[in-house]
Amino acid sequence: MPYEINETHDPNLKSWVESANDPATDFPIQNLPFCEFDTLAEGEEELEGLPKDGGVGVLIGDHVLSLVSCEAEGLIEKELGRSDELGDIMDFASFSTSTPRILSRLRRVVSGILRKDGKRIARRPAAKSRILYRQSDVRFSEMIVCNYTDFYASIHHATTVGAMFRPDNPLLPNYKWVPIGYHGRASSIVPSGTTITRPRGQTKADDAAAPTFGPCKLLDYEMEVGFFVGRGNDIGAPINIEQAEDHIFGLCLVNDWSARDMQKWEYQPLGPFLAKNFATTVSPYVVTMEALAPFRCPAMKRPDGDPAPLPHLFSERDQKLGGIDITLEVFLTSKQMRDRNLSPIRLSKGSFKDMYWTIAQLLTHHASNGCNMQPGDLLASGTISGQSPDSRGCLLELTWDGPGKPRKPIELPTGEKRTFLEDGDEVIMKGYCEREGFRRIGFGECRGIIAPAPGSAR
Amino acid sequence: MPYEINETHDPNLKSWVESANDPATDFPIQNLPFCEFDTLAEGEEELEGLPKDGGVGVLIGDHVLSLVSCEAEGLIEKELGRSDELGDIMDFASFSTSTPRILSRLRRVVSGILRKDGKRIARRPAAKSRILYRQSDVRFSEMIVCNYTDFYASIHHATTVGAMFRPDNPLLPNYKWVPIGYHGRASSIVPSGTTITRPRGQTKADDAAAPTFGPCKLLDYEMEVGFFVGRGNDIGAPINIEQAEDHIFGLCLVNDWSARDMQKWEYQPLGPFLAKNFATTVSPYVVTMEALAPFRCPAMKRPDGDPAPLPHLFSERDQKLGGIDITLEVFLTSKQMRDRNLSPIRLSKGSFKDMYWTIAQLLTHHASNGCNMQPGDLLASGTISGQSPDSRGCLLELTWDGPGKPRKPIELPTGEKRTFLEDGDEVIMKGYCEREGFRRIGFGECRGIIAPAPGSAR
Repeated sequence: MPYEINETHDPNLKSWVESANDPATDFPIQNLPFCEFDTLAEGEEELEGLPKDGGVGVLIGDHVLSLVSCEAEGLIEKELGRSDELGDIMDFASFSTSTPRILSRLRRVVSGILRKDGKRIARRPAAKSRILYRQSDVRFSEMIVCNYTDFYASIHHATTVGAMFRPDNPLLPNYKWVPIGYHGRASSIVPSGTTITRPRGQTKADDAAAPTFGPCKLLDYEMEVGFFVGRGNDIGAPINIEQAEDHIFGLCLVNDWSARDMQKWEYQPLGPFLAKNFATTVSPYVVTMEALAPFRCPAMKRPDGDPAPLPHLFSERDQKLGGIDITLEVFLTSKQMRDRNLSPIRLSKGSFKDMYWTIAQLLTHHASNGCNMQPGDLLASGTISGQSPDSRGCLLELTWDGPGKPRKPIELPTGEKRTFLEDGDEVIMKGYCEREGFRRIGFGECRGIIAPAPGSAR
Repeated sequence: MPYEINETHDPNLKSWVESANDPATDFPIQNLPFCEFDTLAEGEEELEGLPKDGGVGVLIGDHVLSLVSCEAEGLIEKELGRSDELGDIMDFASFSTSTPRILSRLRRVVSGILRKDGKRIARRPAAKSRILYRQSDVRFSEMIVCNYTDFYASIHHATTVGAMFRPDNPLLPNYKWVPIGYHGRASSIVPSGTTITRPRGQTKADDAAAPTFGPCKLLDYEMEVGFFVGRGNDIGAPINIEQAEDHIFGLCLVNDWSARDMQKWEYQPLGPFLAKNFATTVSPYVVTMEALAPFRCPAMKRPDGDPAPLPHLFSERDQKLGGIDITLEVFLTSKQMRDRNLSPIRLSKGSFKDMYWTIAQLLTHHASNGCNMQPGDLLASGTISGQSPDSRGCLLELTWDGPGKPRKPIELPTGEKRTFLEDGDEVIMKGYCEREGFRRIGFGECRGIIAPAPGSAR
């Protein structure tokens, strides 16, 4: 069942954490995303091998609220009651199996702890310093990901990319029937801020007789949205589309770094492999489905003439409210720009609502053959591009100027030009939701700087 | 460094576990594969939620030797000395990170415990009953697999399958340069003996206007060999081919169940997905690289005119000894055959030595872009087929009769016919190594029975 808008979404709600009331923050009290964190306790940590605090946290303004400490202070259990439905707050994968009902109750409790006019915390002001950490003082982890699947759910992306390789027939016949996806590599998923080493790999020029092995020359990012599985399903037992969203814990931003020259040479016939699995960056915060309730919208209207989804992928409610209106922006700085203190330039602005398949359809499809989804699995949308050129979510599309034409570089404020990423470039992705009458909520950032390939003079 | 043949391979070595001396056993004292097991302690187990014994075991004849119990009896530590290089024997993934040096020493210790003329155990015959379990009394797990990659390393398989879809151009231009592979689904890897539910999925007949959703009609198996990663590598730090085998813990059998009709409709452009991820069966025993030392052979000789591997995938030593001569057999029974007590029929007999790429090349390629391999990762070869038709490792190839021709069914002793698998069919895979002057060692079995699709009258 989709979550409903309730008092936790009230735009007038303020927090005693003052930075949460800043109109520019991604994390007002109306958001409350979960994260997995540990504190940087100098000295002690190294000696004991254990963080002072950590586990599941909640982002609020510039701070993180520790659920473990809240529990220790008696702030959670009494409100929530004892419940086996609340997963382990020290273990993110287990925590994500909490039922939607209990997550919703927990959201009210956390909102109550953090609101300015909250009574229980007002009576114990000293507790505030024991449950809250500055974000700059903690480490975020990429959360547990055992299985990672990447889809191809933006029809605009699929059409543009298809046109590069098959000008007359850009979209393959299965596209409008099958939510196309493939398995990605879970081990190389890293949290925002991790340096990305330029991969080396095999590439072959069209006119060359043989491939060569060396640093990737056409390094790209892909702007995606990911969603985490909460409760899983048993092997052999598909998920019905009407229940699909109950299995989704929340959303994050994903940068599916891509080595385009390697991809072109390797991807036939089994799909992308080394062109993608060297690194995938995620924003290490899970914006819950309940926080997104005010920003739900109809699924993308299929153009006239397109087939309806097959019955197992179709639900009236999903068509009506299966979309999510998330604005997605990609920014770039080069090393020169940072050295000169120039602001990042925006490369694109798109929306997650422009997807051909809803997240419920993606999950239902994935489990439709009986494949067992597990808590903490990450499913990503694939590159999100809209119809307009400035909404394209990767350089492969952004600098394409039509079949047979040379690529059109993007000019940076330093006079540098980019068709693909250079060493020292930083890609910064942002996502946020805005709607009249509601407080803006954001996804934080998903960023990474490119380091030179190993053993390379580039 | 490859392991050398030593006294643990001596064919005259006998064990006090009598079943290990049976010439037909897969698990003589010269083999000693590792497994992850727990005991079925009736009553107690359910009450306490804990097995009586378990963790890493060693297969010997019809029995399993418990390393935990050996340690408790003081049989391991004293011999091995305290060593940080030995991973946790309660945790298979951690155990697999043990260094080759320490695994080799452990093999000598275990061989010493199990040999008939071993002195320490002879002095304490009572300990024998505390360290050994009948295989029929324990449960084997599929071992921890966090990341699963499937390759396409048999050129005979790639050529035959390619010919079905592209008669004039069966092998794609990248095949002889790039060890083609893709990520599989880790969650649905199951141990031998697990029932396999026929998947449902989208398929489209060539002459149909639209696809339909229903039970797979062309269900197939794929005979593969898998290898487990022991020690991993850091992200961004490739593995050199000269060191690659040091990162390999051992081998097992893999059945990569495949829904051919779903595969055909879904696989473009990102590769196989739901056609494969409903289940993958493994033999839950790891035959170590050291046990295989006597059966090493040159890498497959590339046909004249084929390119040499690029330098990062080439090593003289790997060319000389990178192959492994494992005979692979696939058997089938139908329900009717089992009801009438008929023996399984053999569908194929091939060899793992017929691979275009060695396991060292597969692992080196996988990490060549900096992708981090992790302990317990499973990498599988892809379907193993030889040049002769009776060595083909899947029904897609076995019942193919040439382009445009109808499939040629396999006749069972009951008069039943098979082009693909029917409900109730059981597929049984076996693997073993034989060489003059050495004791035969085997991989055990990898088996699974097909159950009807959910909600299906099939």
